[in-house]
Amino acid sequence: MRERTIKIQKPRTYCGIVGVYGVSGASKDIYYGLNALQHRGQEAAGIVTRERKTDKTFFNVHRGPGLVADVFRDEKLLTEVLKGDAGIGHDRYSTTGSTENLKNVQPIVVNYRLGNLAISHNGNLTNSHRLRDELTQEGTIFQTTTDTEIILHLIARSKKDSVIDQVYEALEAIRGAFSLVILSDDQLIVARDPYGFRPLALGRLGKGFVAASETCAFDVIGAEYVRDVEPGEIIVIDDEALRTGETRSIFLPEIPRQSRHCIFEYIYFSRPDSRIFGESVDKVRRKIGKGLAEEAPVSNATAGSDAPSGEDDAKLVVISVPDSSNTATLGYVSQSMKMGIKARFEIGLIRSHYIGRTFIQPDQDTRTLKVKMKFNTVKGVLKGRRVVIVDDSIVRGTTSKQLVKLVREAEPAEVHFRVSSPPIMHPCYYGMDFPSEGELFANQFDGDIERMTEELNVDSLSYLSLEKLLDSVPLDERRGFCTACFSGDYPTEVEVNTKEEFEANINEVKI
Amino acid sequence: MRERTIKIQKPRTYCGIVGVYGVSGASKDIYYGLNALQHRGQEAAGIVTRERKTDKTFFNVHRGPGLVADVFRDEKLLTEVLKGDAGIGHDRYSTTGSTENLKNVQPIVVNYRLGNLAISHNGNLTNSHRLRDELTQEGTIFQTTTDTEIILHLIARSKKDSVIDQVYEALEAIRGAFSLVILSDDQLIVARDPYGFRPLALGRLGKGFVAASETCAFDVIGAEYVRDVEPGEIIVIDDEALRTGETRSIFLPEIPRQSRHCIFEYIYFSRPDSRIFGESVDKVRRKIGKGLAEEAPVSNATAGSDAPSGEDDAKLVVISVPDSSNTATLGYVSQSMKMGIKARFEIGLIRSHYIGRTFIQPDQDTRTLKVKMKFNTVKGVLKGRRVVIVDDSIVRGTTSKQLVKLVREAEPAEVHFRVSSPPIMHPCYYGMDFPSEGELFANQFDGDIERMTEELNVDSLSYLSLEKLLDSVPLDERRGFCTACFSGDYPTEVEVNTKEEFEANINEVKI
Amino acid sequence: MRERTIKIQKPRTYCGIVGVYGVSGASKDIYYGLNALQHRGQEAAGIVTRERKTDKTFFNVHRGPGLVADVFRDEKLLTEVLKGDAGIGHDRYSTTGSTENLKNVQPIVVNYRLGNLAISHNGNLTNSHRLRDELTQEGTIFQTTTDTEIILHLIARSKKDSVIDQVYEALEAIRGAFSLVILSDDQLIVARDPYGFRPLALGRLGKGFVAASETCAFDVIGAEYVRDVEPGEIIVIDDEALRTGETRSIFLPEIPRQSRHCIFEYIYFSRPDSRIFGESVDKVRRKIGKGLAEEAPVSNATAGSDAPSGEDDAKLVVISVPDSSNTATLGYVSQSMKMGIKARFEIGLIRSHYIGRTFIQPDQDTRTLKVKMKFNTVKGVLKGRRVVIVDDSIVRGTTSKQLVKLVREAEPAEVHFRVSSPPIMHPCYYGMDFPSEGELFANQFDGDIERMTEELNVDSLSYLSLEKLLDSVPLDERRGFCTACFSGDYPTEVEVNTKEEFEANINEVKI
Amino acid sequence: MRERTIKIQKPRTYCGIVGVYGVSGASKDIYYGLNALQHRGQEAAGIVTRERKTDKTFFNVHRGPGLVADVFRDEKLLTEVLKGDAGIGHDRYSTTGSTENLKNVQPIVVNYRLGNLAISHNGNLTNSHRLRDELTQEGTIFQTTTDTEIILHLIARSKKDSVIDQVYEALEAIRGAFSLVILSDDQLIVARDPYGFRPLALGRLGKGFVAASETCAFDVIGAEYVRDVEPGEIIVIDDEALRTGETRSIFLPEIPRQSRHCIFEYIYFSRPDSRIFGESVDKVRRKIGKGLAEEAPVSNATAGSDAPSGEDDAKLVVISVPDSSNTATLGYVSQSMKMGIKARFEIGLIRSHYIGRTFIQPDQDTRTLKVKMKFNTVKGVLKGRRVVIVDDSIVRGTTSKQLVKLVREAEPAEVHFRVSSPPIMHPCYYGMDFPSEGELFANQFDGDIERMTEELNVDSLSYLSLEKLLDSVPLDERRGFCTACFSGDYPTEVEVNTKEEFEANINEVKI
Repeated sequence: MRERTIKIQKPRTYCGIVGVYGVSGASKDIYYGLNALQHRGQEAAGIVTRERKTDKTFFNVHRGPGLVADVFRDEKLLTEVLKGDAGIGHDRYSTTGSTENLKNVQPIVVNYRLGNLAISHNGNLTNSHRLRDELTQEGTIFQTTTDTEIILHLIARSKKDSVIDQVYEALEAIRGAFSLVILSDDQLIVARDPYGFRPLALGRLGKGFVAASETCAFDVIGAEYVRDVEPGEIIVIDDEALRTGETRSIFLPEIPRQSRHCIFEYIYFSRPDSRIFGESVDKVRRKIGKGLAEEAPVSNATAGSDAPSGEDDAKLVVISVPDSSNTATLGYVSQSMKMGIKARFEIGLIRSHYIGRTFIQPDQDTRTLKVKMKFNTVKGVLKGRRVVIVDDSIVRGTTSKQLVKLVREAEPAEVHFRVSSPPIMHPCYYGMDFPSEGELFANQFDGDIERMTEELNVDSLSYLSLEKLLDSVPLDERRGFCTACFSGDYPTEVEVNTKEEFEANINEVKI
Repeated sequence: MRERTIKIQKPRTYCGIVGVYGVSGASKDIYYGLNALQHRGQEAAGIVTRERKTDKTFFNVHRGPGLVADVFRDEKLLTEVLKGDAGIGHDRYSTTGSTENLKNVQPIVVNYRLGNLAISHNGNLTNSHRLRDELTQEGTIFQTTTDTEIILHLIARSKKDSVIDQVYEALEAIRGAFSLVILSDDQLIVARDPYGFRPLALGRLGKGFVAASETCAFDVIGAEYVRDVEPGEIIVIDDEALRTGETRSIFLPEIPRQSRHCIFEYIYFSRPDSRIFGESVDKVRRKIGKGLAEEAPVSNATAGSDAPSGEDDAKLVVISVPDSSNTATLGYVSQSMKMGIKARFEIGLIRSHYIGRTFIQPDQDTRTLKVKMKFNTVKGVLKGRRVVIVDDSIVRGTTSKQLVKLVREAEPAEVHFRVSSPPIMHPCYYGMDFPSEGELFANQFDGDIERMTEELNVDSLSYLSLEKLLDSVPLDERRGFCTACFSGDYPTEVEVNTKEEFEANINEVKI
Repeated sequence: MRERTIKIQKPRTYCGIVGVYGVSGASKDIYYGLNALQHRGQEAAGIVTRERKTDKTFFNVHRGPGLVADVFRDEKLLTEVLKGDAGIGHDRYSTTGSTENLKNVQPIVVNYRLGNLAISHNGNLTNSHRLRDELTQEGTIFQTTTDTEIILHLIARSKKDSVIDQVYEALEAIRGAFSLVILSDDQLIVARDPYGFRPLALGRLGKGFVAASETCAFDVIGAEYVRDVEPGEIIVIDDEALRTGETRSIFLPEIPRQSRHCIFEYIYFSRPDSRIFGESVDKVRRKIGKGLAEEAPVSNATAGSDAPSGEDDAKLVVISVPDSSNTATLGYVSQSMKMGIKARFEIGLIRSHYIGRTFIQPDQDTRTLKVKMKFNTVKGVLKGRRVVIVDDSIVRGTTSKQLVKLVREAEPAEVHFRVSSPPIMHPCYYGMDFPSEGELFANQFDGDIERMTEELNVDSLSYLSLEKLLDSVPLDERRGFCTACFSGDYPTEVEVNTKEEFEANINEVKI
Repeated sequence: MRERTIKIQKPRTYCGIVGVYGVSGASKDIYYGLNALQHRGQEAAGIVTRERKTDKTFFNVHRGPGLVADVFRDEKLLTEVLKGDAGIGHDRYSTTGSTENLKNVQPIVVNYRLGNLAISHNGNLTNSHRLRDELTQEGTIFQTTTDTEIILHLIARSKKDSVIDQVYEALEAIRGAFSLVILSDDQLIVARDPYGFRPLALGRLGKGFVAASETCAFDVIGAEYVRDVEPGEIIVIDDEALRTGETRSIFLPEIPRQSRHCIFEYIYFSRPDSRIFGESVDKVRRKIGKGLAEEAPVSNATAGSDAPSGEDDAKLVVISVPDSSNTATLGYVSQSMKMGIKARFEIGLIRSHYIGRTFIQPDQDTRTLKVKMKFNTVKGVLKGRRVVIVDDSIVRGTTSKQLVKLVREAEPAEVHFRVSSPPIMHPCYYGMDFPSEGELFANQFDGDIERMTEELNVDSLSYLSLEKLLDSVPLDERRGFCTACFSGDYPTEVEVNTKEEFEANINEVKI
């Protein structure tokens, strides 16, 4: 028999999802919510709403490539096309390729035995190859290369006679990370995988309900945060829920005693003004910064320094890589000062916010230019100073090297690099867009700090320890964290195929 | 059990399809072919090509709304994206709605058990509701509202182990009109329904093969017409065919003794320079015009006329509604002259070819303007003359009425209306975009010529008889024609649902 | 002193112009009028309206590249932006270059001493180099490379204290061809050069006034044709004209006794349903065709033919190159028949109307494809027949050669080429987009019919004589015609520079 | 005589300008430079390059609405269209109107007596009405409503025989603020008004020269900062300058002893990583923050507070309004601490950088939403704390009020507002886009702090004093600053018309 060459698109599952039920003009709230979650995905966006007419229920859809504000540039789309009091939305993570599978733009909308169904998914399945294999053996066709379509097929294949039973059966079959909002003709279903990898929160907006990846989406529309969706929980929001103000929940079987929240959401991905996994991101990120100072301070008296005392005070400046490491840097400085170090928080790097996806790439031989387009140094702040750069993580190392080079051009006395997370040694199969092991900076050097210090051309380099990181997050008996990218300890089995480099074999070009 | 409300999009199956196999840079030939077939569909266009790389086979896709020239405005799409030596394309018929289901843009491309599959379809199924019903009961999801997706699901559901066997099984199950080009990883499959409703021709281009709805697509790329695809025939074109120069064919079971070609393709839809159903369209159309003159001449001596003899000669002018009735009008004039009538072919209406789909519609109360934007009269040709307008058909009657009004403004002595087809009394379930019975002009007046004459405000009105029409086409023992829109005699069973007004319940707006 | 290298853009003055005064919602009428004149220019379009508010007068403008329907795709432009009861519009002729001076898109709108001024111009000046020279010496800056800007500067430089006096002074200074509509804060001024090269008609629309290049623009909006604007006439339409129903006119000095209308407007450029230069285009074009048959018939008995008599009848078919030579061809056939020749008008070439400006150009080595994209033969009509192709003119000869090649592929017995105008031997300095002398087909062969016959690969070739052409047009004591492209007899002096190849030295790319 | 109603567009003269001479592929450097200056104008962008061919000099232009990255999305524009080794560019400030005069997009390019000329202008003239008046009296036409076109006309009208002499004559005639880069066929001319209102710096890039509004544009392309262009200086950069490495300068007459740099560039407008007016923006901004703390500290012991000591320490947090007041806030905190106040710099507001110009505006009744779209609070940082908000300025007050409202929702104990500039009481006629006096917040309340405190709903409000502000900038005998928006002390006469509300009377809509 012919060997199949079906390949699944490389997971790009940094995404933002929003669901609204029972709110008049739902599309506007979804729109504002997607904007607040724009940092989770800038490649594409889409909204589906349910519109009830006298004798029929319609699903209205608009999706497209680009930022939310670009995709929904024409307000009529919200007011005249996307009518209805319930709906879901999706922000998709940015890829760099010039060709892309447009049909992968979410939400996916289908029509099946029990009516219409739309789905937005944040996460990455770890048994998608096996499932896709089984489904195709049964005669299923795939129009996209997403995990999301697999979930839809599983729902539709279920023999059960209610959408919620079908969803239950489908979610029972999948493994890996999934935060979902599902819209049917009569319900909004909100669900999360048993480990709770990705965040998902439930809120109220007037008499209606909302769900979103992060609470910052609630703030913008004035919704009230109620609680996180529990790991393994499936919440059903329907007209009865609107009447009673109570939602119904069912739980997936085999929910582990302790969850495995993605610790990288705290380190880098979520917005600092959001509350996820039971704690404010800002608060955790500050603790992380403090922990980093405890473990890896840069003291005022450097070895071999014979600078006159009193002079050193002014010399030690701590800068962040804006905006992602701002909060951790503040924590680092405050703890340093508490430890008696005369350090000062400074703005040493200016970031241009106009550098977006449409930008013309500089030629290959001027790679520095790319970093220069995005960052510039404030020379007066750096010149002659002992500079500590606090960054949230090092993935490939390319940007970090260019950043250090840029900072060095401002002629600092020393450059110390502090990373507010442990070395990333392993890829993520639950949704972070890390490259393969061989491309990870820390992995390339086997985590050898000395060689990495040399490679980055810094005076010293330190990472936060995993222990300290875990001290900073709200760990308890029930709440655990996934640290697989640092430790290699994957909470779930990962099928072999997932570990290969994936590539779509259907290319579709943007219109 | 819950009543299903699944609705299928109103059939819009005027379409043009093209397939190419074994021609280097296939996308360019498909592009030129789709342009030649542009009259069959102006709403959207798409091309899929198969690209073989060392160890994988890719399907490259580009589709979009608009004319072929607009969708593929950037030449790089053809040369850099749509690489490969095999591919298929599709022109979609124009609809008037402002919102439309973008996913319905063809070709549809999927990935399934036996690899990639792309399909372009011209026609309309008559058992799609039952099939869709059965498929959804089995757990199938539908991402579009097209018949085409049904065919794909049937192929994928087949347990057979070769694409061609699966296609056979799928086509066995469907009823109605279908001309198809299907691209798999290793084959181009070209197929036509057992009645041969829609045209489909096979040709050679160098050592490669081509298929297209009409032969005018062959002319533009210099391909040689080989033969029509037979009703019920499934032709397999693969690498072996390239080597041997021979294609393999299998035939669907239960092919009726006599085909049922759509006679309206000859009357209006196909290009006059194409050869379909075994005869040149131009030739048939001319015979139709001649037959119309035989049956419904406008003589020089009109009843009650006391015009001095000799004067009448100059007065009788015959005009076409450009460009669709040009050929029939020529036939009408030549036969009239043969019958001793002094008639002259004249260009009395000038058509603007700039009036396309993007046009701003005049206000409702100035409906005439719409016709005026498209047509203007050559007053000198019409003034004081006895004018015969030959048109190919009357569907809703709106345009005809406005046209007569426009012609009357040029102050002709008389206006006679001749239609080169019988009255359209019934809807088409095989792909012509006719409205429901109640909206058909002839049906509204029960075919009462007197009342229709009055309604159109003409001095006389005649239609071609069905008998004369059948005399004009290459009818024989094996070759028959579908005349259902005139006679109500539908060659196949049509499921009840198909007879209702359809509407999609998933709306997607153009990006 | 440094030699100046200022160059003026090659004249591209096939254009359509429209003016409206005293009609509520003037922009819509201008829009429909520009559509009717679209054949005069497809490159760009623009509309300016005058909007009077309580204490100010605004000029609203919208211009852009493309067809009228594309430039004004959004209806709001007409209803909400281009408000006012007076306005002018412009269609610009299509160029082939990929870069173009966008600012040349008309109407040009400026603000000067006496208020706002907008201008649309059809024609080409013959003393523009000298004028531009003088103006620049006086310190004038040019933001475009058009003649039109020169006219505006001349108006503004005039010391006169009324717009109409200024316009008079400016038009007195210019030479060459100009049909103009000029909008000021209080007037619509309509003017034509003393020779009346380009057409320009005046009409009424309700109580308001309209002006347009051709009367077909009146028909579409239901305006009534009043009369042609006289050569050398400047018509002032203002609020008083609205009250009295009478316009005022002044005349330029030195109007020649006989006008010099562009005879090529009758041959090719104007729409057959328009009335220009005092006669219907259709009527003239038919006479031209008849004259061509008189001078250059193709008889049934060809030299050396031994075909049995009676057979020849069916064999002689006359085809047009649609749509431009349709009317002349009809005239050719009717006169041939009157002369006892058994000729038949046939549709032998089908033209695709979807081939527009956005089309991907075939590779250089397949030049035939370009013609094939636009035309296809109806083989049954041509095969074995003696074919007469009637075309309106031969400019470069490239298309004609490809057309003959295409027709020959249909295997006719003979191919005869008849041209309904004399050989074009000289460039046009009054607005027709002919190439330089060296590129003109007839000029290349010194008008040697034998060599041209060979080059075109036809059995015979004939042109209409200039005498016959002049017989066909409404020539009289006052009405003369410019035949310079045939005879080299230019009615005005042409400055030397105009005879060189021009090129803009400011390039602006389409947005 | 008829009263003229010519109105000039409301000055929108926040702009960024760049010039390059003698650098191969100049367009790329201009492009990167314009990107670095994007904060100075996001509405439109344009580049002109000079391309020398064998016997001619071409000016290539591309301009359009939107961000630099959008206008030049297609890299070919830079590499294939905008060829040449010299050029200039322009970023235009963002307006909010939906209709706009597209022709105002700079650089403006013209052709005149001495060749081609292109110009980019940052600033605002104060005698433009008089000049425009004089020019129109002389017969000049205006195609835009910009000051820039006035300058071009003055240059062209000059009788001098060299571009540089003409520029000198033109600049002598104009009053107000202007930083200019002018490209002629043979030179790049860089000039600045006698008061030096707007910044303009000169640099070297290899053997070539560059000029830009701010030095951050040099950093990104690796150019070396040489010096500021002097007030009243006109620098000529030509091929000789390339050879010798030396530029020539001439100076305008009547240069005041002391310059009048716009102090608001330091407060808000320039990037902190730029060096303008002889000092790093970052450094000045930090001193401003320190001065604000000295003048208006928020002490730990608030009046009437009976909070237990030691608790207060943690409670006082100082937050910036990111990113514009970041640096001043750091200065404020560091000085507060030096003064013994236990204050902490905190990130209390998160700014979304995805909120751009295409955004759908919330309905009028939910004005808060607009601020919420842009900012969100970090609640944990603010709740129960005494919060000091440091902002750079208050213009209309609308945003400030909404911001305070937003912060109050996070339930702080107190909210103190500190402004790092004096109250803005007067409009700017030199280029800042301030509204009319009546709309200025401070002006509405006559600078009454008590009423403004109430209006903003804060516990205390303080502005920086003008004295302290002047202490923070590099003031000396030759270098002075314009403080007119605070003091009403305008350095130049301002013509009466300029003080009225301007409006364009030619509207052009974006294509």
